[in-house]
Amino acid sequence: VRLPDEVTTPATVVDVDRLEANLAAMARRTADAGLALRPHAKTHKCPPIALRQLALGAAGVAVATVAEAEAMAGAGVDDIFIAYPVLATGTRTRRLAALAERVRLTVGVDSPAGAAQLARAVGGMPLTVLIEVDCGHHRTGVGAEQAAEVARAARRAGLSVAGVFTFPGHGYRPGAIEAAALDEDRALDRAAAGLEGAGLEARVRSGGSTPTVARTVSRAATEVRPGVYAMNDAQQLVLGTCTETDVALVVVASVVSVPAPDRVVLDAGSKVLGADRPDWVPGFGVVAGVPGAVVGQLSEHHAVVTWPPDGPPRPAVGDRLAVIPNHVCSAVNLVDELVVVSRGIEVDRWPVAARGANH
Amino acid sequence: VRLPDEVTTPATVVDVDRLEANLAAMARRTADAGLALRPHAKTHKCPPIALRQLALGAAGVAVATVAEAEAMAGAGVDDIFIAYPVLATGTRTRRLAALAERVRLTVGVDSPAGAAQLARAVGGMPLTVLIEVDCGHHRTGVGAEQAAEVARAARRAGLSVAGVFTFPGHGYRPGAIEAAALDEDRALDRAAAGLEGAGLEARVRSGGSTPTVARTVSRAATEVRPGVYAMNDAQQLVLGTCTETDVALVVVASVVSVPAPDRVVLDAGSKVLGADRPDWVPGFGVVAGVPGAVVGQLSEHHAVVTWPPDGPPRPAVGDRLAVIPNHVCSAVNLVDELVVVSRGIEVDRWPVAARGANH
Repeated sequence: VRLPDEVTTPATVVDVDRLEANLAAMARRTADAGLALRPHAKTHKCPPIALRQLALGAAGVAVATVAEAEAMAGAGVDDIFIAYPVLATGTRTRRLAALAERVRLTVGVDSPAGAAQLARAVGGMPLTVLIEVDCGHHRTGVGAEQAAEVARAARRAGLSVAGVFTFPGHGYRPGAIEAAALDEDRALDRAAAGLEGAGLEARVRSGGSTPTVARTVSRAATEVRPGVYAMNDAQQLVLGTCTETDVALVVVASVVSVPAPDRVVLDAGSKVLGADRPDWVPGFGVVAGVPGAVVGQLSEHHAVVTWPPDGPPRPAVGDRLAVIPNHVCSAVNLVDELVVVSRGIEVDRWPVAARGANH
Repeated sequence: VRLPDEVTTPATVVDVDRLEANLAAMARRTADAGLALRPHAKTHKCPPIALRQLALGAAGVAVATVAEAEAMAGAGVDDIFIAYPVLATGTRTRRLAALAERVRLTVGVDSPAGAAQLARAVGGMPLTVLIEVDCGHHRTGVGAEQAAEVARAARRAGLSVAGVFTFPGHGYRPGAIEAAALDEDRALDRAAAGLEGAGLEARVRSGGSTPTVARTVSRAATEVRPGVYAMNDAQQLVLGTCTETDVALVVVASVVSVPAPDRVVLDAGSKVLGADRPDWVPGFGVVAGVPGAVVGQLSEHHAVVTWPPDGPPRPAVGDRLAVIPNHVCSAVNLVDELVVVSRGIEVDRWPVAARGANH
């Protein structure tokens, strides 16, 4: 990513050529594998990116919240899966019903109580649901053996069960990707067999994440929901699912202080990079194009970069660098707009339409 | 904090009675110590809170960015210190000059290059600056011995040097607070002596942070800039600078899944709690009122709480809990408004006017 000169730092910048290459590569890869692609829009939260994903053949988008679904529906996306055990309470009750009338909506369910509340919210409409299965990440989702029980409860409540979904998030760790992909395969297989054994449909078997989709081709899944692949980030670099030339989003930051020979301080802190920091990444972000230049200390408005002694000349106050955030989904959610560049020239600004859309 | 019934989760809720008690206690404490109080507004980013701090006797506010200063100036705050080595580039050039005409503005400086650029930006106006000194946190700021050199460069550039400032951020660790407060004292003393030895004024010696101000009374400082004390958070609980009844901000979340006996999953993830997680806190946040109920795993929209076996009965899908974020400054920056409650009743909504104000 080259840096546009006019932009006031810190600025969150998308290289539209790299973005396009990433979107096209995943569209090809999933088409070749015979898998439906349903990109997770929580990563970019941006209608122009979602619409481009659809133009390249995506079946629809996945989102995590009703508010994200509303933002995508408002931009013209007409097939949306809320990949989350949505709790139909508060304003969500009427908002879910309105969404279900407006787009082809699918919602996640992982408990009889959640299913009953969803059914009440849509008041008799045959809302389509997928049963969430835990394949090893251990957050939401029931065990594959319990999927049929939840599915039966959902059907009794009046919902239309179309299959199962899972998220192999335990693949987010070096060396863990292949095993997580196998776990996903097994869980989708078993859960789908459970549903079919109970006389229920399991035509949708939705899985996938950027790391697992990049490395393996699932046998059991019918569709995948990667999100991060659109732009990539420092986590994906460590996981080996992309190289630096595949990173389409950076935070352009200025050097504000060089108070010691090995310390370069940038005006990009946790409020623009995000504070995600799993124990298997080297720091709070990395400087693009400077191997070994890692954000070792992060405050809200300071990124302290340890400058590699064998690296390029140390930058001076006023110089600008591009920082690759650890987790692109968090970084996007911190800004109102993305500065879109092509070959270092600003060509557009995209509003982050679903920023803060948590409810 | 009691939970209002009508609010759709996740919601970021401020208990205005606890807030008022925190603001009043700090105003009293600093007044008793003869210290000027300049609360850091990066914590709350909310004009109503800033104006209340001023009404209780604060000398002005501190902020971290020009954009935060603009938000506070727009709300009527007329004495603002940007406690950061501001780089006067891009749109900041004209914006700094406009601010300096509008309010009593002070800006941080830690390099001759930064000072020169600031002086150019304000075009001959005698902008007031404080020299930033590193007292041990090792991000921005020069050593106490170099303060006079930067101050001379600032004066030569045409800026008006009023003194020195530091941030004892290395006190953010259990057992480190008292030593950091002593470091701050020494650094402010030495740097001020350096300025005075060079024939420069050092009438302002600004320090402080919530942990150090709560535990010690600085000898050297003339003013302090705590921010977090207004609302407190899980970090302050661990540091022992507050108790749970002093926590004035929580994220009200709903249980969306109880997939295993010891696992309760809430709809409050890193996109509303923030992902800050220093190694000395027990998790990614704690459940208010339930000792031992810690957010052990955090995704963007899932907080996985390990429920204590000896705790109260495990909540069910649909129940609501209040989560205390690790770092209140990050949590506030993720939402557009705070739901203001008094005795569990919603009494107001406050826009987070300076949300995302990084530039």
